[in-house]
Amino acid sequence: MVKVGIIGAGRIGKVHLQSICNYVRNATVKTVADPYMNEETEGFIRSFGVENVTKDYHEILNDPEIDAVLVCSSTDTHAPISIEAIAAGKHVFCEKPVDHDIEKIKQVMKALEGKKIKFQVGFNRRFDHNFEAIRAAVKEGRIGQPHIIKITSRDPEPPSADYVAHSGGMFLDMTIHDFDMARYLVGSDVEEVYVQSAVLVDPAIGEAGDVDTAIITLKMANGALCVIDNSRRAAYGYDQRAEVFGSEGMIATANDANSTAVLSNAQGVTGEKPLYFFLERYMQSFAKEMACFIDAVEQDAETPVDVIDGLQAVRIGVAAKKSVDEKRPVALSEID
Amino acid sequence: MVKVGIIGAGRIGKVHLQSICNYVRNATVKTVADPYMNEETEGFIRSFGVENVTKDYHEILNDPEIDAVLVCSSTDTHAPISIEAIAAGKHVFCEKPVDHDIEKIKQVMKALEGKKIKFQVGFNRRFDHNFEAIRAAVKEGRIGQPHIIKITSRDPEPPSADYVAHSGGMFLDMTIHDFDMARYLVGSDVEEVYVQSAVLVDPAIGEAGDVDTAIITLKMANGALCVIDNSRRAAYGYDQRAEVFGSEGMIATANDANSTAVLSNAQGVTGEKPLYFFLERYMQSFAKEMACFIDAVEQDAETPVDVIDGLQAVRIGVAAKKSVDEKRPVALSEID
Amino acid sequence: MVKVGIIGAGRIGKVHLQSICNYVRNATVKTVADPYMNEETEGFIRSFGVENVTKDYHEILNDPEIDAVLVCSSTDTHAPISIEAIAAGKHVFCEKPVDHDIEKIKQVMKALEGKKIKFQVGFNRRFDHNFEAIRAAVKEGRIGQPHIIKITSRDPEPPSADYVAHSGGMFLDMTIHDFDMARYLVGSDVEEVYVQSAVLVDPAIGEAGDVDTAIITLKMANGALCVIDNSRRAAYGYDQRAEVFGSEGMIATANDANSTAVLSNAQGVTGEKPLYFFLERYMQSFAKEMACFIDAVEQDAETPVDVIDGLQAVRIGVAAKKSVDEKRPVALSEID
Amino acid sequence: MVKVGIIGAGRIGKVHLQSICNYVRNATVKTVADPYMNEETEGFIRSFGVENVTKDYHEILNDPEIDAVLVCSSTDTHAPISIEAIAAGKHVFCEKPVDHDIEKIKQVMKALEGKKIKFQVGFNRRFDHNFEAIRAAVKEGRIGQPHIIKITSRDPEPPSADYVAHSGGMFLDMTIHDFDMARYLVGSDVEEVYVQSAVLVDPAIGEAGDVDTAIITLKMANGALCVIDNSRRAAYGYDQRAEVFGSEGMIATANDANSTAVLSNAQGVTGEKPLYFFLERYMQSFAKEMACFIDAVEQDAETPVDVIDGLQAVRIGVAAKKSVDEKRPVALSEID
Repeated sequence: MVKVGIIGAGRIGKVHLQSICNYVRNATVKTVADPYMNEETEGFIRSFGVENVTKDYHEILNDPEIDAVLVCSSTDTHAPISIEAIAAGKHVFCEKPVDHDIEKIKQVMKALEGKKIKFQVGFNRRFDHNFEAIRAAVKEGRIGQPHIIKITSRDPEPPSADYVAHSGGMFLDMTIHDFDMARYLVGSDVEEVYVQSAVLVDPAIGEAGDVDTAIITLKMANGALCVIDNSRRAAYGYDQRAEVFGSEGMIATANDANSTAVLSNAQGVTGEKPLYFFLERYMQSFAKEMACFIDAVEQDAETPVDVIDGLQAVRIGVAAKKSVDEKRPVALSEID
Repeated sequence: MVKVGIIGAGRIGKVHLQSICNYVRNATVKTVADPYMNEETEGFIRSFGVENVTKDYHEILNDPEIDAVLVCSSTDTHAPISIEAIAAGKHVFCEKPVDHDIEKIKQVMKALEGKKIKFQVGFNRRFDHNFEAIRAAVKEGRIGQPHIIKITSRDPEPPSADYVAHSGGMFLDMTIHDFDMARYLVGSDVEEVYVQSAVLVDPAIGEAGDVDTAIITLKMANGALCVIDNSRRAAYGYDQRAEVFGSEGMIATANDANSTAVLSNAQGVTGEKPLYFFLERYMQSFAKEMACFIDAVEQDAETPVDVIDGLQAVRIGVAAKKSVDEKRPVALSEID
Repeated sequence: MVKVGIIGAGRIGKVHLQSICNYVRNATVKTVADPYMNEETEGFIRSFGVENVTKDYHEILNDPEIDAVLVCSSTDTHAPISIEAIAAGKHVFCEKPVDHDIEKIKQVMKALEGKKIKFQVGFNRRFDHNFEAIRAAVKEGRIGQPHIIKITSRDPEPPSADYVAHSGGMFLDMTIHDFDMARYLVGSDVEEVYVQSAVLVDPAIGEAGDVDTAIITLKMANGALCVIDNSRRAAYGYDQRAEVFGSEGMIATANDANSTAVLSNAQGVTGEKPLYFFLERYMQSFAKEMACFIDAVEQDAETPVDVIDGLQAVRIGVAAKKSVDEKRPVALSEID
Repeated sequence: MVKVGIIGAGRIGKVHLQSICNYVRNATVKTVADPYMNEETEGFIRSFGVENVTKDYHEILNDPEIDAVLVCSSTDTHAPISIEAIAAGKHVFCEKPVDHDIEKIKQVMKALEGKKIKFQVGFNRRFDHNFEAIRAAVKEGRIGQPHIIKITSRDPEPPSADYVAHSGGMFLDMTIHDFDMARYLVGSDVEEVYVQSAVLVDPAIGEAGDVDTAIITLKMANGALCVIDNSRRAAYGYDQRAEVFGSEGMIATANDANSTAVLSNAQGVTGEKPLYFFLERYMQSFAKEMACFIDAVEQDAETPVDVIDGLQAVRIGVAAKKSVDEKRPVALSEID
């Protein structure tokens, strides 16, 4: 039985709490820490039978009974808390992105060196049933050599301009999942990035120095070409699709909906919209990533998403930004 | 917090145990009873934090702390145990069918008379996301007046001839869900039943006096016509679809699959098979029916599937059998 | 080059005229006859380069240059004109139904006896790309032994009560295509018919002594069960689907639409309605049946739909009517 | 009745011949010319009732009875023959591309200046039912302002290296259709082109100086971003899809198949592959473009695809080539 402490009881911290309590049979959550802990949150946490609720995450790091820590705090604290946790000998599950700053990710990597610490980054989409099915087909050679990867990733609603200002920009906040997905789907690194982008959804996003619409072309190390298209707002909800085309065929996924029901009437033949909210769409993937992390801890196995994966996605994001600024393709080797 | 006792720790008893522990926040399972309780089962039950595990279900009935009982024992004991539980003042969730014998169901109805006892029958498919979507569309008038109801229900594998011999026959064992579905989808009773059936899957089923393939036509009280098609074996897995056609349109559902992935290659364009096993296909519906039962108990509200629903489905099943025997349409009014 | 005369220049006669002129390279239409020939129709016919346009179909029967005749006149004249044409040594393509009266069809059969005359009945749906794909899969054994056949056939608009009065009833007018389809899809005859029907679309149809909604169960000679569902009015257009389920799998078709375009917006994910009108939906099948008829004539081969097919579909229709009248399953052997 | 002469009796010339003879009621083909005319081709042409068959296209240009000319000869002769035809006062339908050389297209434009000559370029895909449905939805504002355009265009088989050497390269030979499609779907010009490409299908294509796989990003004048993905070989056949995403929704098309039949068995749920060959896939569009050209001639209306459309697609193709050579985004304004 793996004993877990959760640092950060915001939306994603709560998701992981639920996942462990409801789905993961070989772990329990002993302590949840959050500096802004309030009564409502505490009540929610306690309803899952969690013993300790605190404002100070050091209670977790100092608790010798706790094996593993979930870092679900604000992005700027991911790296320093991870480093503290590693120093305390805890296995770490760190939410994405590890940091916006490549240097800080490298410090985490350094902290991990020579340690028998498990470190997993929260790229939950790798554990989604649809994307897993693509990955499996590619891995089994069912599409032959991959030639073209296409990822569509569109949010149902843009974030507030306020959020945008502190988000690190669309590429590090939103597209980062897609960068990781490109690497995951074909098991290859990215060599070059070109971005064509625009502000078409909300001028306030542009005023905050960001973009809201983009076509991103990646050249992969294995020779495949990848294209990601992003929008901060899809009127029909959360659009999350992918396709890998190769020498022997193509594997593609569609969106998930709440039901398969289709209404045929004088207006047309109408199915349900995609699941609207990322928590609906990806709930099962959050549970599965947690189960995989706990298994890696318990069985002393490799985590399925490691710190290098965390680093590479950020490097691609930084290259994407540079491509926008300099209006040219940017080699990943230009980014340290 | 509703305290629950589970009588019967077979496959379906375990499903309800998991549902309550993982999804239903306003209930706990205090005791599980099964005459064949063994170590493995006890270990499984205890891993959910259940206090009492016993071979004698009277421990549950005699426990004044327990509010509600789930009757998950063998079919022939559903009615007598339900009656005992009602006498003990427990709310009852009874697995389907309440009994093969209409007389015994009427005894349960009598036991309920004048009591403030909640009674729910385990027609879980009413809580399935796809069938709920049809029901909602029909109820909201989106297809106008219902004219034609079509239900496809095909199992992935036939039961053993042994099982068949004690199952009450395909209509009471398998089609009973579809009879309830017909009533549920359009909110109307059945008036007449005609069956055309055959033994096409396994001669042993015929030798056991049952059929394995059937087309069943129902005339509904609201004037709609319904057709159910059944097979005990679909090579591609569990086939569970429905369609309601009305004056303003049609609402139809497809099967659920594990993912939306589609492989295009030289052989064709291939998607995944339907979810194969009823527990995969209907897991979410089992959780939801349990949540609804607990809510009905806690809020003193009507249960969504009551003893009359349990009775009617069996009456239709008995009429179906009679239609096969007498090779003619049978009015439901002929069946008491 | 097969020389063709067309008797009857109504809607279906014009369809065949176009098919032969535009698609069938080994035939020409020499003469078109219609007692109600008017200027507009004549102009239309001449625009295809047809030499002779007449009111008297005997000009066709007496023309030694004409090899084959298309009987596209009113239903009550199909049999007598066919018999005249056979006597004149012409090959005959006869629109469906050959007659409502089984006796008259038998007279046609008698006229054909011992003659080297090709006779084809206009069950065009056998030549539809979708239904051909089902038939091919069944024939190739890709679904194993057929167990269940399902045919959905719903019209976009009900006929006028006037039309209904002279139509021979829904089973001989509309379902007759589906009866033929059942036989075609699995290559087997029908043994028993049971109908559950209703008047749900238009009371005037009921007043004219007909039904507008039906579920028809057929028992096939090969042991398979078949169900046809009919409605005289589908709000979303012409609904023409079929499914054959067997020991090794299922083959099913969906409706055709004008395009594959799907609109996703805040209201849902909406595709186009099925092609609305039977001429849109089945145009290609009309062309193909004509090409097959001409080929059979030219190559002295069997026609793909013969007079027995014409007879059997009518017998099933008559049995269906009897089933409604007598509220019981009717064996086909009861119908001569 | 428009009298037509066809110059070039290769594959595409024959397609147009058939289209006019079978579908276009207000035109006839009087003469077909081809320098390589042989008996077989002549027989084919004469079977459509064409009067004159010749090796010398001047017979067409000098025939005062002929109103319109279809230029279906080899690409290098499109421009000069068009210019001759214009000088002879003939309306011109010119196959794509007008020329690989922008200068020559400008000479055609000059020849047209001040003349009442109709000139249409053979971008047949604009007349495809699926792409027309997208265009209509965009035009009617059903997806709001267009933000992202996605075009997938993959051939079933690569051309021979020999063909590649004289094709003008993939962008002018194959992608040119997609460039026109991008402009057509949203009714906007292209401002900038960036290409990421590779040789993944056949090294011989690379040795011939061309690419066989590409991701092409376009910036449109209306602010939308477009991405085209191309491959010279899709194992599952001809892949022709498009999607336009906008402020209010998305409209997308799938491939056409020969039937809607889907086989469900132990291996999965398998539909048919896309129509394999461009003539199958686009036959209806070829007929429609011809009908539109003839209508424009007959009614003295604008042609739906004019010489500017022909010019722009080539300019984008030239920019695409430059982008590959110079590994940078290329503004269309750089290309004259």
